[in-house]
Amino acid sequence: MPETLSTIVSPEGSLEVLSQSEVNRLRDTSTSGLHDLLRRCALAILNCDTPTDDGLAVMEAYKDFDIEVLQQDRGIRLKLSNAPACAFVDGRMIRGVREQLSAVLRDIVYVYNEIQNTPKFDLETNEGATNAVFHILRNASTLRTAQEPSMVVCWGGHSITREEYDYTKGVGYHMGLRGLDICTGCGPGAMKGPMKGANLAHAKQRRHGSRYLGISEPGIIAAESPNPIVNELVIMPDIEKRLEAFVRIGHGIVVFPGGVGTAEEILYLLGILMHPDNRDIPFPVIFTGPESARDYFQRIDEFLCYTLGEQVRRHYRIVVDDPITVSRLMRDGIQEVAEFRREQNDAFYFNWRLNIERGFQQPFEPTHEAMAALALHHDQPNHQLAANLRRAFSGIVAGNVKEPGVRAIAARGPFRLHAEPELMARLDSLLTSFVAQGRMKLPGSEYVPCYTLG
Amino acid sequence: MPETLSTIVSPEGSLEVLSQSEVNRLRDTSTSGLHDLLRRCALAILNCDTPTDDGLAVMEAYKDFDIEVLQQDRGIRLKLSNAPACAFVDGRMIRGVREQLSAVLRDIVYVYNEIQNTPKFDLETNEGATNAVFHILRNASTLRTAQEPSMVVCWGGHSITREEYDYTKGVGYHMGLRGLDICTGCGPGAMKGPMKGANLAHAKQRRHGSRYLGISEPGIIAAESPNPIVNELVIMPDIEKRLEAFVRIGHGIVVFPGGVGTAEEILYLLGILMHPDNRDIPFPVIFTGPESARDYFQRIDEFLCYTLGEQVRRHYRIVVDDPITVSRLMRDGIQEVAEFRREQNDAFYFNWRLNIERGFQQPFEPTHEAMAALALHHDQPNHQLAANLRRAFSGIVAGNVKEPGVRAIAARGPFRLHAEPELMARLDSLLTSFVAQGRMKLPGSEYVPCYTLG
Amino acid sequence: MPETLSTIVSPEGSLEVLSQSEVNRLRDTSTSGLHDLLRRCALAILNCDTPTDDGLAVMEAYKDFDIEVLQQDRGIRLKLSNAPACAFVDGRMIRGVREQLSAVLRDIVYVYNEIQNTPKFDLETNEGATNAVFHILRNASTLRTAQEPSMVVCWGGHSITREEYDYTKGVGYHMGLRGLDICTGCGPGAMKGPMKGANLAHAKQRRHGSRYLGISEPGIIAAESPNPIVNELVIMPDIEKRLEAFVRIGHGIVVFPGGVGTAEEILYLLGILMHPDNRDIPFPVIFTGPESARDYFQRIDEFLCYTLGEQVRRHYRIVVDDPITVSRLMRDGIQEVAEFRREQNDAFYFNWRLNIERGFQQPFEPTHEAMAALALHHDQPNHQLAANLRRAFSGIVAGNVKEPGVRAIAARGPFRLHAEPELMARLDSLLTSFVAQGRMKLPGSEYVPCYTLG
Amino acid sequence: MPETLSTIVSPEGSLEVLSQSEVNRLRDTSTSGLHDLLRRCALAILNCDTPTDDGLAVMEAYKDFDIEVLQQDRGIRLKLSNAPACAFVDGRMIRGVREQLSAVLRDIVYVYNEIQNTPKFDLETNEGATNAVFHILRNASTLRTAQEPSMVVCWGGHSITREEYDYTKGVGYHMGLRGLDICTGCGPGAMKGPMKGANLAHAKQRRHGSRYLGISEPGIIAAESPNPIVNELVIMPDIEKRLEAFVRIGHGIVVFPGGVGTAEEILYLLGILMHPDNRDIPFPVIFTGPESARDYFQRIDEFLCYTLGEQVRRHYRIVVDDPITVSRLMRDGIQEVAEFRREQNDAFYFNWRLNIERGFQQPFEPTHEAMAALALHHDQPNHQLAANLRRAFSGIVAGNVKEPGVRAIAARGPFRLHAEPELMARLDSLLTSFVAQGRMKLPGSEYVPCYTLG
Repeated sequence: MPETLSTIVSPEGSLEVLSQSEVNRLRDTSTSGLHDLLRRCALAILNCDTPTDDGLAVMEAYKDFDIEVLQQDRGIRLKLSNAPACAFVDGRMIRGVREQLSAVLRDIVYVYNEIQNTPKFDLETNEGATNAVFHILRNASTLRTAQEPSMVVCWGGHSITREEYDYTKGVGYHMGLRGLDICTGCGPGAMKGPMKGANLAHAKQRRHGSRYLGISEPGIIAAESPNPIVNELVIMPDIEKRLEAFVRIGHGIVVFPGGVGTAEEILYLLGILMHPDNRDIPFPVIFTGPESARDYFQRIDEFLCYTLGEQVRRHYRIVVDDPITVSRLMRDGIQEVAEFRREQNDAFYFNWRLNIERGFQQPFEPTHEAMAALALHHDQPNHQLAANLRRAFSGIVAGNVKEPGVRAIAARGPFRLHAEPELMARLDSLLTSFVAQGRMKLPGSEYVPCYTLG
Repeated sequence: MPETLSTIVSPEGSLEVLSQSEVNRLRDTSTSGLHDLLRRCALAILNCDTPTDDGLAVMEAYKDFDIEVLQQDRGIRLKLSNAPACAFVDGRMIRGVREQLSAVLRDIVYVYNEIQNTPKFDLETNEGATNAVFHILRNASTLRTAQEPSMVVCWGGHSITREEYDYTKGVGYHMGLRGLDICTGCGPGAMKGPMKGANLAHAKQRRHGSRYLGISEPGIIAAESPNPIVNELVIMPDIEKRLEAFVRIGHGIVVFPGGVGTAEEILYLLGILMHPDNRDIPFPVIFTGPESARDYFQRIDEFLCYTLGEQVRRHYRIVVDDPITVSRLMRDGIQEVAEFRREQNDAFYFNWRLNIERGFQQPFEPTHEAMAALALHHDQPNHQLAANLRRAFSGIVAGNVKEPGVRAIAARGPFRLHAEPELMARLDSLLTSFVAQGRMKLPGSEYVPCYTLG
Repeated sequence: MPETLSTIVSPEGSLEVLSQSEVNRLRDTSTSGLHDLLRRCALAILNCDTPTDDGLAVMEAYKDFDIEVLQQDRGIRLKLSNAPACAFVDGRMIRGVREQLSAVLRDIVYVYNEIQNTPKFDLETNEGATNAVFHILRNASTLRTAQEPSMVVCWGGHSITREEYDYTKGVGYHMGLRGLDICTGCGPGAMKGPMKGANLAHAKQRRHGSRYLGISEPGIIAAESPNPIVNELVIMPDIEKRLEAFVRIGHGIVVFPGGVGTAEEILYLLGILMHPDNRDIPFPVIFTGPESARDYFQRIDEFLCYTLGEQVRRHYRIVVDDPITVSRLMRDGIQEVAEFRREQNDAFYFNWRLNIERGFQQPFEPTHEAMAALALHHDQPNHQLAANLRRAFSGIVAGNVKEPGVRAIAARGPFRLHAEPELMARLDSLLTSFVAQGRMKLPGSEYVPCYTLG
Repeated sequence: MPETLSTIVSPEGSLEVLSQSEVNRLRDTSTSGLHDLLRRCALAILNCDTPTDDGLAVMEAYKDFDIEVLQQDRGIRLKLSNAPACAFVDGRMIRGVREQLSAVLRDIVYVYNEIQNTPKFDLETNEGATNAVFHILRNASTLRTAQEPSMVVCWGGHSITREEYDYTKGVGYHMGLRGLDICTGCGPGAMKGPMKGANLAHAKQRRHGSRYLGISEPGIIAAESPNPIVNELVIMPDIEKRLEAFVRIGHGIVVFPGGVGTAEEILYLLGILMHPDNRDIPFPVIFTGPESARDYFQRIDEFLCYTLGEQVRRHYRIVVDDPITVSRLMRDGIQEVAEFRREQNDAFYFNWRLNIERGFQQPFEPTHEAMAALALHHDQPNHQLAANLRRAFSGIVAGNVKEPGVRAIAARGPFRLHAEPELMARLDSLLTSFVAQGRMKLPGSEYVPCYTLG
């Protein structure tokens, strides 16, 4: 049984100055339906030294853990029971952990009270959803006016080889040397490597105030515990808003090898960039990995060309085994973004101009029925096919690691996906290659697919 | 005709990062019913070099002035037409003026959208009203967690003699030497002197980050233009919330000689401090002025004892002609406040513990009818009499300088107040002495009373 | 008898980390021949609230005052006996005063140990003297690499009319609004007004880190106590190095009305600027005052043209009663300086390029003999005549307010100056006008000339 | 052949504001006898990505490298020819490298001009030598007044096993979590691990302004290139002053496994701490390593007890395989140091009180003669034997990696050491164990001893 500790801590940042009514609401919120959500996210944060993508196992290991919001005259305190001891030094919580814990509470409460349960945002409209993303990011103080574009979003698998991990560090290092910041999904693997590399490079360049931004979601945070370098953490309510946050706050995107989650992100991104409204908006996208990943990207490239057409290649570039070239291309691409925004009088901190269609915004609930109903064929515009493929991959991620998905699979067996034959074959081949390369789970356990094709 | 200038400026601070919906709301708000309010407050800020308490005259002088909120992709711009030239240097707005202008816009829009027109705050309840005050102050970034208590609220007349003004500077200077910050109603006279003195003392003590907080209200800002030293400005929606802001954010209060406005403040403050719930809350209050003001404070003291009973004296101390003693007493008193808050685990930045009864919170609309109906007699508890006297003085201030009040008097003649005979006599004598001492208007013009007693 | 106080204080800044040998040297230095110098300068700093130009009177008033350097393991402490009470608040020295006191000790000891008594600087050479000026300024941390040119030196009398004083404040205010810093000789009158005005303007513009640099000398500091706004203080060892510091660190110069001291400064400045080597170095110089000073500047202008020739006019501009124009000209002139330095790859913080001939560097000891021997005639190049006239005025200043000069006059009667007839007449007329305008002493006392012409 | 690059860079920090004479001296110094020294040190800095302890090999690899100081009006520039390309990013020098390069130039020139060639410091006296150490550290801005004691000096080998290296990281990590800073000799191995661990911990604790201080010497810097985390670098002129700097600036010392260099440091440290004058000065010393190093420390412990007596054990503590205990002991020990200094009114930033005898200060030139003449027997006080053993180890380090030593050995064969028989045997056994454990050289090359015992 792991070592635990019970204590009371003060939150940080925006939770320090609260009105009486906010304290009440916070306490009520945390004891009502949100309590379980808060508890799970908090545990993911506190369990900071044990990298695992098995959220259920973590929950099991610390099943006595609990968190409670206490009201005190000067504000609130968080009462933790049986919390993982690794979050503390001699009884005091590590400050970075305390900040991340406060961020989790801040975002859960904000989303619940100010986004979901007010008439302010009509989340069913395009504008309402985007405004919600904007407000959550702003409330988390991630939108900064005084900064030149420098935010590179890095996507890729949490379960990658040592060689690939070292490669992501190398790319982060060379981007860091060139004054770029890093944003990822904030877990291990390709989400940690670039931050680690950039952190070293920033130290060498004596760059202060560097940003290591992690954007997570409650459904996956237990499987992708924020790494300790993350110094800004935002919890978006669902994967769709999380993806929108990435593309609106990032000035460029690097994609490392990954599994279905990465494939979901690629489909999402290219489906948006291919939209006619977005054609002329500069947005550097680079797929990269070590020599051993050459084949991986070739397969992705082929799959994309087959499904979305050759013109999809205009929107990304593949660079194999060359971190310096990646970092130079990214810096130059972001320079172009800066010039474009300046010309258009656009904000640097949020890409309002990007048109994201409703199909990419609507939360997709991956039930067996919804998965089975996905239209996976070419009798629809490219961006709609992209949106549906994105949903298919999203559902597989859920079946792999998100709690409700895992439970659904356990109860009713794998999802069944239907597609036109050629597409089916190619999808099958792609997914099989992910499994073969061990990109679906942490090394060690054998992967049992959560889907069948047919 | 005064020199004017038309231009477009960017706002500062919290108005820099806005969502599309906020921009729309801001633009709509500023063109709807709030436009005139915004225009008047903006003019008061821009007219920064011409100290006058005649708001109507200012409006008249710049009757072509206008302000418009423009939407731009990266945020909003403020379009100013025929603005007073004194707010600019070689065509660029002085930064402090720009900050104050942004503060005005921020507060007007916040109050309108987030306080008055949402179901969030039930302003009819005690808790709702206090929460509103808290939220407006927090939204203005005036609630700071990391600071030891140091905020001295200074009250007193805008129309005081040179000798009295120099005295307020002296008190501010000696308080500044002792590390205290200043909060006032942000106009001229006793609202400017202490800031000016403290500013010099802070420079001598190399004290950085000193606070010169001005709390105003739309109804009076035109007559009490923020002085240039004010580096934090908050516009509360009405005099009752403004007074509550003073007593909740201040750690001690110094009262200089003044007129009916000052009398209103004194009645408000003592009515609250005398409430049994507040008996044991330390709160240093000092009445002070130069030798020439000795008689003035004696009259106030007598009036207070007569109306509220001898025990009122427990709550204030009168110091004549001794700035050093005032500053030492204030520093020591605030030290006690700090210890008390620490013991009680209370916040330093907001005095939640103070019980302010509804009678002191409800906005009082000084119509002829309301004034005539005020119960001014001893057949009620002391704190109720204090509340009613506060309303009476408040009405006279409105009749003197607030636009609706001035118009009402012009239309229907002076307010008529009724009181029990002895109280009537004492009130008459007090008000007459204010007039005799020239405390009702700026020197030069003769005062025509806006009230009759009988 | 004035109130005094005895205490022990810690020094600030560069005196905080000393080696054992430095502590010894400091203690020895302060008890040896330098003790009296240190004592006098310290008293001038501590006597911060009593503006007087009568240094001897101050010494007399505080004749029991003493200062001693104590050694302690962690560094040094300063033991003060019978110090003016105005330098303290409740027994603690005002921080600004403590900084100025530390600056005095720092500079006296540095000059004595590192400039005068080492073989490092050959003060008899041009390069050695300039290097000494540079090192004293750098040791005082006044040379800053990261700043754009913005330093305006303001010269003018300590004894000026209220109207003139207000005018200097106005000029400082408008220069401050335009982002300029102020450097003066750090006493009262025209040395304080521009700082005071700029300070207010900097507050309005929310300009942080503004510089109010005072450059003094031991001989005159008692008569020109640093005003409290001065936040950087440097004590140069003699008037010649002080003048060189002004012209090498300043990016432009404003001359207000003054007496012989101001005349000395003008002659020094123009003698240098007229040198052929300096012809093409941009250096904005503006003579300015209120309407009442028009006649004053006309006389100066005539005297300069007569003595140095019409071409002297290319180096200055006279602006009467127009602070805004002065501030615009100065800002534009300094902009030119910045461009020139950038083109030449010159430092912003020190004007190395300016050629200052030995005649302007050599300390002039104004004995009766030296004064009588000055060659005041046109049979020499213009810049030599300028240098000699500078010396003549310098001697008169010494006779007026510097201790050795005052004692010499007391002992041997007025200095006798010889000049060619026409020059004599014009000099007489100029000096007489200074006396008539009360520019030689503080108002109140009648001026007894310390010179005769003939 | 390695990639190189030729360019001109500006120095950083204290070299930015120089007088003409300083520029001249710098240029002259760098072209005179110091040029080779400067060139070698600069190359060590620039060769930042190739960890090797073979200084001669580095020199050989970049034999075309050169550095020249150029004079420019605004200061100096450094002209680099054929510099290692790894110090640059797209042609711009990495800022951390530029800072370290400037530090090297700063210290070489300072030592040469202000320490060695002035009458100011009598380096032959105890006080003079200590003052020199103090002045070099202060000139490098390492003495900070506002900081609580927190500096842990970490000693240990540059050539250690991966397991040992990871252990040093672990200790650094846990000390970093507890708010401690790290100072080392600034090379690889045990000099880098603790910094790396602390750096991660400081990031987790959001600790800003953390210090990673490297203290090197010209003779060894080529073999111990500063690792990139070092953000303060000081080059002391010889090993004796380097060792004195460690013990005067550090508040505690952790010793990891190492070779003769580490043994030299241990002898130096204990020789000083055992001096009667230093008995009561708290100074926490911990020997620590992973389980595999248990035997190593047992041998050291035995050797120390045999040579210096049992009472030596009072001054250190051995902790095996327990980073958390090490970090807690160190934090508590430093807390004691802070209290002691406070009580004694001692400086935090420099341990003046420690008595270091001349025997430990005098530079030891390890010639064959000097080595042969060392008195290694018990017929002398313990601290003298410690001093001589320190010299013996120092000579072996020189023979291993310092250029003159290596050349001397190449020319004349191994150093011959004489000792009394039992001591000889124990020394032999200790040194042999170092060789056996591979602690004398980088793994890979076989060690050929530079000494013989007999």
